[in-house]
Amino acid sequence: MANFLVFQSDFGLVDGAVSAMKGVAYKVDPTLTIGDLTHDITPYNIFEASYRLFQTIEYWPEGTVFVSVVDPGVGSNRKSVVAKTSRGQYIVTPNNGTLTHIKRFVGIEELREIEEKTNRLANSELSYTFHGRDVYAYTGARLAAGVIDFAGVGPRLDVEETIMLDLYGSSYEDGAVKGQIDILDVRFGSLWTSITFDDFKKLNASFGEYLEVQIFNHKTMVYSNRVIYGHSFADVMIGAPIIYMNSVNHMALAINQGSFAKAYNVGVGSSWEISFRKI
Amino acid sequence: MANFLVFQSDFGLVDGAVSAMKGVAYKVDPTLTIGDLTHDITPYNIFEASYRLFQTIEYWPEGTVFVSVVDPGVGSNRKSVVAKTSRGQYIVTPNNGTLTHIKRFVGIEELREIEEKTNRLANSELSYTFHGRDVYAYTGARLAAGVIDFAGVGPRLDVEETIMLDLYGSSYEDGAVKGQIDILDVRFGSLWTSITFDDFKKLNASFGEYLEVQIFNHKTMVYSNRVIYGHSFADVMIGAPIIYMNSVNHMALAINQGSFAKAYNVGVGSSWEISFRKI
Amino acid sequence: MANFLVFQSDFGLVDGAVSAMKGVAYKVDPTLTIGDLTHDITPYNIFEASYRLFQTIEYWPEGTVFVSVVDPGVGSNRKSVVAKTSRGQYIVTPNNGTLTHIKRFVGIEELREIEEKTNRLANSELSYTFHGRDVYAYTGARLAAGVIDFAGVGPRLDVEETIMLDLYGSSYEDGAVKGQIDILDVRFGSLWTSITFDDFKKLNASFGEYLEVQIFNHKTMVYSNRVIYGHSFADVMIGAPIIYMNSVNHMALAINQGSFAKAYNVGVGSSWEISFRKI
Repeated sequence: MANFLVFQSDFGLVDGAVSAMKGVAYKVDPTLTIGDLTHDITPYNIFEASYRLFQTIEYWPEGTVFVSVVDPGVGSNRKSVVAKTSRGQYIVTPNNGTLTHIKRFVGIEELREIEEKTNRLANSELSYTFHGRDVYAYTGARLAAGVIDFAGVGPRLDVEETIMLDLYGSSYEDGAVKGQIDILDVRFGSLWTSITFDDFKKLNASFGEYLEVQIFNHKTMVYSNRVIYGHSFADVMIGAPIIYMNSVNHMALAINQGSFAKAYNVGVGSSWEISFRKI
Repeated sequence: MANFLVFQSDFGLVDGAVSAMKGVAYKVDPTLTIGDLTHDITPYNIFEASYRLFQTIEYWPEGTVFVSVVDPGVGSNRKSVVAKTSRGQYIVTPNNGTLTHIKRFVGIEELREIEEKTNRLANSELSYTFHGRDVYAYTGARLAAGVIDFAGVGPRLDVEETIMLDLYGSSYEDGAVKGQIDILDVRFGSLWTSITFDDFKKLNASFGEYLEVQIFNHKTMVYSNRVIYGHSFADVMIGAPIIYMNSVNHMALAINQGSFAKAYNVGVGSSWEISFRKI
Repeated sequence: MANFLVFQSDFGLVDGAVSAMKGVAYKVDPTLTIGDLTHDITPYNIFEASYRLFQTIEYWPEGTVFVSVVDPGVGSNRKSVVAKTSRGQYIVTPNNGTLTHIKRFVGIEELREIEEKTNRLANSELSYTFHGRDVYAYTGARLAAGVIDFAGVGPRLDVEETIMLDLYGSSYEDGAVKGQIDILDVRFGSLWTSITFDDFKKLNASFGEYLEVQIFNHKTMVYSNRVIYGHSFADVMIGAPIIYMNSVNHMALAINQGSFAKAYNVGVGSSWEISFRKI
């Protein structure tokens, strides 16, 4: 039986940090199957870490242990935790907001604090800056390998102690749906919004129908246009914009074979609001 | 027995897309051995995808299944196929030109269209933008794992239905060989040409001999110089240019420890022609 | 029993070079467990290659074989070697300085030259530019898989034939410790110095104490300030500088959630000297 351990971080792949975490894990159990989510989270960006977990983990097998290290507070009194999701996967992470999307959209069944006296790499007590290697990779590997069970992580916390980031959410009102631009499909420059497909359906829009799209930055309009709603990029000419449902069932806005984000200098976060309205 | 599944895409590694594809594959069979070719294909660049397959796949074991997702036409009526090469490897890809170099230089023994009714991730029917995850990774994993055999992919197509990009090729005439600049050895800035070693041999050049090199962009000469033909970079001083046979048996042009592409602003494609001539 | 083979290079991941090396290794033995250290070593930068090995390899299991290919002299008469470290790991590399930190800080027990007549990929004799694939990956895989034992690599060399880069080192004098800036923690812009924690301890500094930090570039002072010595970034306000011991037991200088290197335009190497002095 394969035991999956999947790493995410903001460390990049330029130095040996990610490799050291994997080495630590293989020393715990050389038969682990180790994978990566991404190591290119923008440094310190907890929202991105939370979103990428949400985007990805359901496609991995039940029982997979994810280790996510985006940890601007390393060395502070932020807690180190392991969450068990309602689908039976585990996430090892600082309790700093990284679990926001998973708690909101998937559910956390149980939360435990890592007891560092037992769950820390031997002889790493003087190391204060690389908990990813000394605590998270080590604990994640031991959990994935079955060296410890979930209770062996440490004492149970109330799930409500999970630190949550504010999420803008998605709303329908007066024939329009509204949300924020959550994140970019970085490579292709598409805008992924917080508007759920469920809210979007309330517009009763059909494929091929034009909708009015407005984008605001700090309440100032930066884009206002009629854009077609389609299945996929190929529904429009090369260079034309399109509204579509993305691969995580939220609404998105793209330019076929172009970058919407670059074309209109659009960013992400709660200062970037977007609406789709029936014409 | 290891079953190899190797991914290539233009998705980059910044988000969770590649990880989701691998998770889907491990759910099909947790004992697969999964690798990567590259995920940094220039977005939508089918020529690069085709070239990188040609550069790499022969070094992997027979039976390896490659999944290549550079798919500007996702959602169009372009077909999804699996090619069996004449060396017994498989390539899962949109039929959009990605198979060009393999068909030309290796050979395709059999081509099948993916029957999506049977070869599609459960509950992904409403997802139109991520065939890499929902169809290609899933089908590649099932084929690599032996859940389906090659016939189980779907109906056989005529190999001549393989979509081919135009290749500039390589030619010898009047004491000169001529081709285009196919691609860069990106990291080092070397120019990899379409001139085969077989054509180059017709010049009867010896190691240490100087040849006349000319580079044209849209028929305008942008470089004309005498350059030595050597085994490897170390045959010339640091900073000096050299003609050599690259690791895929084509002729290349480099600056030892410098970047030829940056030094002379040289690009790739059919508008960039190059010739080597006996002096 | 897993047999670990870990690759490092300056090839980047943009083309198929790293993938071809891994394919060669799996052809030798499909049951190898293959990992990466990094492939983003600055092209031709042997010091970085040496440092990243030092930073990382101790976290991998005993017996792991590392293949490091940063090889500006490919095709020259530089020797190809395998070093056995005093901790029972192996490093396959050109003998060009890549072993400097390992020899100095870990120890090399035995050094052997690769006998290419027996340890070279079949039919690669005409390939002069990709020893990483044809010799190093192939030899590393055979050693990791047990196809050859260490003696099977080739003739023994005197350990003193290991090519060494000059290391600036670390010194204590008159209440100050002095070293160079070795390398950056690239993603976060922290300065990692050559000053060992052992030398630093001679200052008798306590956590929370301010020290005088001076940085010189070519003997010109570029930074002079009082900076607190702490456990970790969270000991100071966001945006404040801190002296700390890094994850390889050397002293480092960072800005909490900022980049010290960018803030003060600081580089690396022997022209960049740094000192910490008791106030």
